[in-house]
Amino acid sequence: MLSRVNKTHDVTLWKKLHSLTRKSLSTTTLLRQEAPPSSQEHLSGTSSFKTVSFLSTDEKHHKTKKSVVILGSGWGAISFLKNIDATKYDVSIISPRNYFLFTPLLPSTPAGTVDEKSIIEPVINFASKKKGSITYIEAEAKAINPDRNTVTVDSMTTVATLKAKDSSSHDSVAGLKRAEPFEVKYDYLITAVGAEPNTFGVKGVEEYGHFLKEIPNSLEIRRKFAENIEKANLLPKGDPERKRLLSIVVVGGGPTGVETAGELQDYVSQDLKKFLPSLAEEVQIHLVEALPVVLNMFEKKLSSYAQSVLEKTTIKLHLKTAVGKVEKDHLIAKTKKPDGTVEEQKIGYGTLIWATGNKARPVVTDLFTKIPEQNQSTRALNVNQFLQVKGSKNIFAIGDNAFCGLPPTAQVAHQQAEYLCKNFDKMEKIDGFHNTLLKKTEKFDLPFEENGFKPFNYIHLGALAYLGSERAIANITYGKRSFYTGGGLITFYVWRILYLSMILSARSRFKVISDWLKLTFFKRDFFKGL
Amino acid sequence: MLSRVNKTHDVTLWKKLHSLTRKSLSTTTLLRQEAPPSSQEHLSGTSSFKTVSFLSTDEKHHKTKKSVVILGSGWGAISFLKNIDATKYDVSIISPRNYFLFTPLLPSTPAGTVDEKSIIEPVINFASKKKGSITYIEAEAKAINPDRNTVTVDSMTTVATLKAKDSSSHDSVAGLKRAEPFEVKYDYLITAVGAEPNTFGVKGVEEYGHFLKEIPNSLEIRRKFAENIEKANLLPKGDPERKRLLSIVVVGGGPTGVETAGELQDYVSQDLKKFLPSLAEEVQIHLVEALPVVLNMFEKKLSSYAQSVLEKTTIKLHLKTAVGKVEKDHLIAKTKKPDGTVEEQKIGYGTLIWATGNKARPVVTDLFTKIPEQNQSTRALNVNQFLQVKGSKNIFAIGDNAFCGLPPTAQVAHQQAEYLCKNFDKMEKIDGFHNTLLKKTEKFDLPFEENGFKPFNYIHLGALAYLGSERAIANITYGKRSFYTGGGLITFYVWRILYLSMILSARSRFKVISDWLKLTFFKRDFFKGL
Repeated sequence: MLSRVNKTHDVTLWKKLHSLTRKSLSTTTLLRQEAPPSSQEHLSGTSSFKTVSFLSTDEKHHKTKKSVVILGSGWGAISFLKNIDATKYDVSIISPRNYFLFTPLLPSTPAGTVDEKSIIEPVINFASKKKGSITYIEAEAKAINPDRNTVTVDSMTTVATLKAKDSSSHDSVAGLKRAEPFEVKYDYLITAVGAEPNTFGVKGVEEYGHFLKEIPNSLEIRRKFAENIEKANLLPKGDPERKRLLSIVVVGGGPTGVETAGELQDYVSQDLKKFLPSLAEEVQIHLVEALPVVLNMFEKKLSSYAQSVLEKTTIKLHLKTAVGKVEKDHLIAKTKKPDGTVEEQKIGYGTLIWATGNKARPVVTDLFTKIPEQNQSTRALNVNQFLQVKGSKNIFAIGDNAFCGLPPTAQVAHQQAEYLCKNFDKMEKIDGFHNTLLKKTEKFDLPFEENGFKPFNYIHLGALAYLGSERAIANITYGKRSFYTGGGLITFYVWRILYLSMILSARSRFKVISDWLKLTFFKRDFFKGL
Repeated sequence: MLSRVNKTHDVTLWKKLHSLTRKSLSTTTLLRQEAPPSSQEHLSGTSSFKTVSFLSTDEKHHKTKKSVVILGSGWGAISFLKNIDATKYDVSIISPRNYFLFTPLLPSTPAGTVDEKSIIEPVINFASKKKGSITYIEAEAKAINPDRNTVTVDSMTTVATLKAKDSSSHDSVAGLKRAEPFEVKYDYLITAVGAEPNTFGVKGVEEYGHFLKEIPNSLEIRRKFAENIEKANLLPKGDPERKRLLSIVVVGGGPTGVETAGELQDYVSQDLKKFLPSLAEEVQIHLVEALPVVLNMFEKKLSSYAQSVLEKTTIKLHLKTAVGKVEKDHLIAKTKKPDGTVEEQKIGYGTLIWATGNKARPVVTDLFTKIPEQNQSTRALNVNQFLQVKGSKNIFAIGDNAFCGLPPTAQVAHQQAEYLCKNFDKMEKIDGFHNTLLKKTEKFDLPFEENGFKPFNYIHLGALAYLGSERAIANITYGKRSFYTGGGLITFYVWRILYLSMILSARSRFKVISDWLKLTFFKRDFFKGL
């Protein structure tokens, strides 16, 4: 078992998915689609909203199941979806992104090492494999309203209720308008919306730089770099503009930054060099990090090794360096010298990748203001040991939008989701638990304590990072016990095998294996705009 | 050996490519990149152009090699590039599309059966495998100027000269501006620019419909259909707008139209049905053909079989039906009844795919006006038995932009390219041939006849088409001898194996195999906008 410490990179060895064949698909996922849900007017303050309940007519008449609404489609949300017992709860999932993204391999995609489609899996594919009924709403949650237990949803793109074949109830009420805001009621809310990239107030980043958080970012980075190569190729060697176009600046020395720099360097030295060697020689990748080390979540031995590997390539490391300002074609970097002085330098770039860290999303910061106990929160929702959002009885937060003293990593999100699903199983088994909890007006964690629920206990499974040039570092642990600490070529294969095992869907695993196998024989697929 | 009769579908069994390993790449394709070519002012009529010659300084001083400029990057152009001896000619290739597209599998891509990236291969990958020096100019040829043996090129995106490592000469003249028009000189020009989709004057097609000729078309069709599914899913069953959104009209009953309809129907009945069954039931695909049969290039037995397969699916065939007008959400179809009357009907659509045929590109129609012997040409350049453009001594045309009484198919283009390369080999071996030909002022084909060049002889290798539901038809011939005529499941596997063998690059073949293998276990990758 293994994992790593970074918001988008940290992962854990999930239970092996049984592989999925066409046959099993046709027998287990013959699901029905329902027309959109019934709706009723709901007055909220000055504005009028429709409140909808995603229950069938049948269910409305004999309602016993509590509704659980999940926000998000990342590690926390999808791990929760996979583990929640949908025969005991009415489960809905709301997310504007209709697929899960295997974030640990995102740095491999701009260079074309792994295809973007290989690391995503549609939400409906996870939902359709579950027993019971799941409703997926493709929409962004704009606000959480704890006063009336609803989520405000804007501009729904689509909605699908996936229901096991043996389930008989159907609803055929006419639909909601696409652009009409409405509210979804919940008994329990699981907020797992993650976080968004943080520019830390540096101007020009959003305008001129690229984040690497989502699939479209990867496509943009590849398009930009490909166009810059073309433009540079029309200029004579030594031209300053050619030099600028061929400069890539990666800001952030965490796993995302290091891996992206390493992957792009691999593309340049393994592929581009084959057909445009003099141009490949002139590509300069800069890696800018404010701390004195890269990959500071690893132990000193490994981060030093990482640094030495990076220095052997042509990647230029700028440590203890902060970015002051970003302009259209250059940025100002301030490096702290050993004597305490600060040296300012101008670094020209053709492509700027910003991978420094994340901040809370608006739907989360909005909730900070609505729950008095969260008024002091800034980065994420404070949760208690049962992952209840402090100050709420029926809102739970997991993953990067929850704060409980752990790093914002995929393995934390995943373990939290699994823990919470176990609690939901137990909640269902205890007579009257739901009523006790949902009617409480204070001491919201008391029902959990009184019924002997165990607090969430995180087991750190380690960390992994790819450095480029087929070198990786890994530290595999189980809590405080360390099983493997290494760096190099063998660790690179360890890295590959562990990542494969962590992928949440068999289809995605198949595609990543194909991509890596292809790379053994052929160059990367580096197509501008594809 | 086998092939088929359609502009984008006809193919032939190419000589097996020796498979390419990373090792062989690094030893055979270590190539150098050159800065852009030298340029000199050239006055052309009232406008001033730069004329460039893609020769190194060394080559300019001791020039003996004739320059061959290829226009295009399709079947004709790439087959010519692969076969021409670049140690004997200075070869340049000009095309705005920097990759070859394996057109026979394009109908498989909108449905996600095969990935778009799997059926394309960069021009530079073909160029870099050749001995000798190849210059690739990523730009559109705007005009051919037979009076001064140049091609006018507008807005060059990039240029790369790929040169074998042992070649020593280099040029380091400063570059041309991206947006500056310039002219490229040639001794011989091979025009293989293909054709563009033809709306046959039907209004509204370009505005509301999608062609299926290039990779971006495939992405657009998938995005459109995915969005329509989402919109339809918000509407109640039976809603007329839902019905319209779920209607796909394919115009054109040739292989492109039939295969696209079949592939989309496969997606609907095999994948969409799994998670949105009631919606999948309402999808209606229409196939509109003006002739009384689909796939009319096949013998009666096979086209009848094709028709029976299509009729067994839910695809609705409209034969003897012409499209009169295309509006935003419907089209007017006119069907000729057995009694000779014409019935008009309105067919609503959410997605319209137009696959009826092609017409000449502007650079070709412009040339019609410049060569007196071509003034009467409309569809393509008339060529003689040596593939010389009639009225020109040093312009050759192959593929869809050439007319010699053969259908505009990939197998014709490929055979023409191979034939022409053999002639170019021979031209080089005959003392003084180039001088004799290039100094001629009339009877341009005489040097070919006098030197015993054989006329182009086309060998028809048959035809193939996929019908959907894992059924295909095939007619495999060698000229007039027929080896295999069949339709059904076995023919579907024959179809797959033959297509694989026709793919021009090992990388592309690897990726198509992966895609098909993936489909055995998983659903299609049907991602909106990816």
